[in-house]
Amino acid sequence: MGDPAGIGPEIIAKAFRDAPSVTAGCFVAGDVAALRRASAMVSGPGRPLIPVARIDTPAAAFAAPTRCIPVLQVSQHVALVDVGQVSALAGAVAAECVIWAARAALRQEVAAIVTAPLHKEALAAAGVPYPGHTELLQAEAAAFLGKPVADVPVRMMLANDELRTVLVSIHVSLRDAIAAVTPENVSQTLRITHESVGSLLRRPPRIGVAGLNPHAGEGGLFGREEVEVIAPAIAAARRVGMDVTGPLAPDTVFMRARASADHPGEFDVVVAMYHDQGLIPVKYLGVDKGVNVTLGLPLLRTSPDHGTAFDLAGTGRADPSSLIEAIRFARQLCA
Amino acid sequence: MGDPAGIGPEIIAKAFRDAPSVTAGCFVAGDVAALRRASAMVSGPGRPLIPVARIDTPAAAFAAPTRCIPVLQVSQHVALVDVGQVSALAGAVAAECVIWAARAALRQEVAAIVTAPLHKEALAAAGVPYPGHTELLQAEAAAFLGKPVADVPVRMMLANDELRTVLVSIHVSLRDAIAAVTPENVSQTLRITHESVGSLLRRPPRIGVAGLNPHAGEGGLFGREEVEVIAPAIAAARRVGMDVTGPLAPDTVFMRARASADHPGEFDVVVAMYHDQGLIPVKYLGVDKGVNVTLGLPLLRTSPDHGTAFDLAGTGRADPSSLIEAIRFARQLCA
Repeated sequence: MGDPAGIGPEIIAKAFRDAPSVTAGCFVAGDVAALRRASAMVSGPGRPLIPVARIDTPAAAFAAPTRCIPVLQVSQHVALVDVGQVSALAGAVAAECVIWAARAALRQEVAAIVTAPLHKEALAAAGVPYPGHTELLQAEAAAFLGKPVADVPVRMMLANDELRTVLVSIHVSLRDAIAAVTPENVSQTLRITHESVGSLLRRPPRIGVAGLNPHAGEGGLFGREEVEVIAPAIAAARRVGMDVTGPLAPDTVFMRARASADHPGEFDVVVAMYHDQGLIPVKYLGVDKGVNVTLGLPLLRTSPDHGTAFDLAGTGRADPSSLIEAIRFARQLCA
Repeated sequence: MGDPAGIGPEIIAKAFRDAPSVTAGCFVAGDVAALRRASAMVSGPGRPLIPVARIDTPAAAFAAPTRCIPVLQVSQHVALVDVGQVSALAGAVAAECVIWAARAALRQEVAAIVTAPLHKEALAAAGVPYPGHTELLQAEAAAFLGKPVADVPVRMMLANDELRTVLVSIHVSLRDAIAAVTPENVSQTLRITHESVGSLLRRPPRIGVAGLNPHAGEGGLFGREEVEVIAPAIAAARRVGMDVTGPLAPDTVFMRARASADHPGEFDVVVAMYHDQGLIPVKYLGVDKGVNVTLGLPLLRTSPDHGTAFDLAGTGRADPSSLIEAIRFARQLCA
């Protein structure tokens, strides 16, 4: 459900209303009252109110009629919080929903999870010791596997119809991102990318690897990370049979990988060395179709590529496109 | 003319053949024999041989018939070098042509210059003490103005139909690019962008400024350059009346600035903090339409967004699109 004070419940209601074939068999792990209110918020002239059906088990979602929103009441609270406001209750409810979903996915009671946006400050206000979904899911997975969190490395993949990119690092300064270009991190990213995108495509993916520096360092002239770190990691990956090419000039590798009607795309996925290197091209044609996929976990998880948008919450105007794409992508991953 | 061993003469011949209205009034500062050979290379069944007309003054270009290539013999040498090979002769001829063009532009004998690609190693083999066009033009401009080179700061702008971006730094490692995000460099980039894009548009440009770090640092959480360097430079620019917004999240500022049929673009130009931040989005939809513009010089100069392509030279297959766009852009700049 995501944070009930954000746009999550509204875009969920719109997704069930507007994309019945994509949402068939899906259900909301959340709060019935919050979804009822959201459904009312997005209804109006020409947009009928979509009913909420309370279900008691995940399997009951299959029996729900189309254009209804099956909700499993996993929250211990009624989540009728003020929209557009940070609140501890909203943070606590949002965390309850994610934890329930993570455990259900780890026990294989659900095939995949799609997470609506959380709010970092609301989580903090609720005393949840994680800044966001990724860290929370990683902790749940580690507990389930009986491993330390450090032994469950994850990577973020951003994908749209044209481009997939997996990031070596995410929310750190650019200076720290350079420091994170280590043999271990690059090799781990290549392995996770090979395995995860391989299961998505059902064949070994063609991986293009971006350099860190302009022109991929031009032979060591503009930085030595390509020569000292990235090229050796690629060579090691190739030795174990991965289809990896690079390090390639960052300013053209995404254009080369881009799949469009007149250009099939040279690579199935690009490994990017830092957050903006990969996210600038994925978002360039519009954020509404971007999907975020967490790779490396023993569960399938996608999410829309935007936040809680407190300024839009309650207006009924939030765009469900990215959430619908995230659900579509999750279906593809577990098909 | 560019390096006569590269694709320069061929794409020039194609531009005069395929884009007569764009090339009207233009001429080649180069070598007649090299252009005659190039015109023959790109002719064939269905593609008539375009004649070369030797002219003696720039003004004579106006009298040249369309679909002919007016060439002013500025080279002291016949430039029939082997194509696809680095040679000192090719480097020397290429430099002669640029120096002639720079001086003609500085003396306002030509309205603008469009430079075909140089080859760095050929320049070095010829003993030319500059790695490329920009440094050479900067030195000529400084000599003309009687100033030290350091007092003629230049910036690279990359532009296509959808997006313009000006870079704070170019061919340095990412680590050095971070170090180049200084108050002076950022302020200088804003001033050059405001003045140059302003004369292009004939109104003060709306400038969007990308942050350096993911999410523009998220209030100092992922790096402090936004707080300590970029925001103060923007505030200072606004105080003197420039229309500058930022620092903005790098992963969405280019999408926001992109002008397309259904989206007018929030900014006229984006100031990017490093090479790949700006070049990834400009090149993402294809390199064939990208144009490179040198800002800050007392002359107008554009160039295609690719190199000498020695592997293609002599085949007649090189694509003139980016050169044609560069000529079109130069016309716009001096219209």
